[in-house]
Amino acid sequence: MRMAELSARSGVPTATIKFYLREGLLPPGERLSATQAAYGEEHLRRLSLVRALIQVGRMPVATAREVLAAVDDETLDQHNRLGVAAWALPSPAPGLAAGEDDEAARTARRAVGTLMAELGWEEFGPGSPAYETLVGAVAALARLGYPCDAARLTRFARVAEELARTDLDLLEELESTAEQVEASVALTVLHEPVLLCLRRLAQAEESARRFPAPPERRAGPG
Amino acid sequence: MRMAELSARSGVPTATIKFYLREGLLPPGERLSATQAAYGEEHLRRLSLVRALIQVGRMPVATAREVLAAVDDETLDQHNRLGVAAWALPSPAPGLAAGEDDEAARTARRAVGTLMAELGWEEFGPGSPAYETLVGAVAALARLGYPCDAARLTRFARVAEELARTDLDLLEELESTAEQVEASVALTVLHEPVLLCLRRLAQAEESARRFPAPPERRAGPG
Repeated sequence: MRMAELSARSGVPTATIKFYLREGLLPPGERLSATQAAYGEEHLRRLSLVRALIQVGRMPVATAREVLAAVDDETLDQHNRLGVAAWALPSPAPGLAAGEDDEAARTARRAVGTLMAELGWEEFGPGSPAYETLVGAVAALARLGYPCDAARLTRFARVAEELARTDLDLLEELESTAEQVEASVALTVLHEPVLLCLRRLAQAEESARRFPAPPERRAGPG
Repeated sequence: MRMAELSARSGVPTATIKFYLREGLLPPGERLSATQAAYGEEHLRRLSLVRALIQVGRMPVATAREVLAAVDDETLDQHNRLGVAAWALPSPAPGLAAGEDDEAARTARRAVGTLMAELGWEEFGPGSPAYETLVGAVAALARLGYPCDAARLTRFARVAEELARTDLDLLEELESTAEQVEASVALTVLHEPVLLCLRRLAQAEESARRFPAPPERRAGPG
């Protein structure tokens, strides 16, 4: 297909597609003439992934390029391609990983270390974006007077394990490593808002159930 | 305590505290002289909350002011204070709520509507940030070729319900409505990175378990 059709089918303006091509986020099309190129289904799919990373994952262009390089790196085995792509994803809350070193931060680091040891999780240790942001979030909770104790952390971790199994089940159905790596990145980034939005909706329900509106207000709107 | 102590205990620079005071995010201290004011424990707690909203929730100052106004609005009953504060929280992925109107978006809207009806969730309907972002995320997944079917959405929703119950248990232990509203905002914002980081760590573990590194690479680092 030509650029115009790629734009129409993806919903991405041609100026943006040209920018992604220049930045190396999208591989060049097959050149037909000095000014024309043809694009295939793989361009359409890659374009959706780029948009997911940048719009949903709020990823800087340079980071998206790094994640996509891992997705495409055929010199790595499957294990490492998945790992490199996952590591390259930016933290869900970059401000938290900044690493203060007060009592709350030290306590949080010990708590996370204990949790990881108990769970036997050792793929992404200290220094990885996810680990450091987790430490920062637990420390921020403690500073606000809401300590995240071992029982609560473990409960969150069990929920996370269940979610991870669901995602990996989906990944295993895919045939090629390239598809699996692409899916792992896309599902990590796009299932996050699904989960967070459902949690916000569930909280509103649970809150309304436990703290109902006074009877005289229930009839009115809102 | 004086401004200097408030800064030392909170870890927030005095210039930032002065900015929050000017912007009305922090109530003024008790005036001691033309240039001195005294701050209490409630200032320290509010300062942590403001920092959580702005740094972790990435909230614009105007949005944080709106959330805090709901937290402080004693003319509302408990039900509405909790609801107004939760509604005011910005979407976890604002780019997604922009609302395209293609086939994927329409299908996603129907799927989310069906899910809400089946669950009996009706507090935050269409038009609320969480609902619209959920529709956008489900549509984005479909466009990428990863449709989020009813079974998967329901599984995510059950997980969300479990998390909401845990948070509300904690809220119910607090004594005043003011504390509950403050906690509901803080826990919504700060438990999100805890959950997302643990999910990323769990995925790395599950991925390593299912796609192990080839034996000759396992001995080496990383």
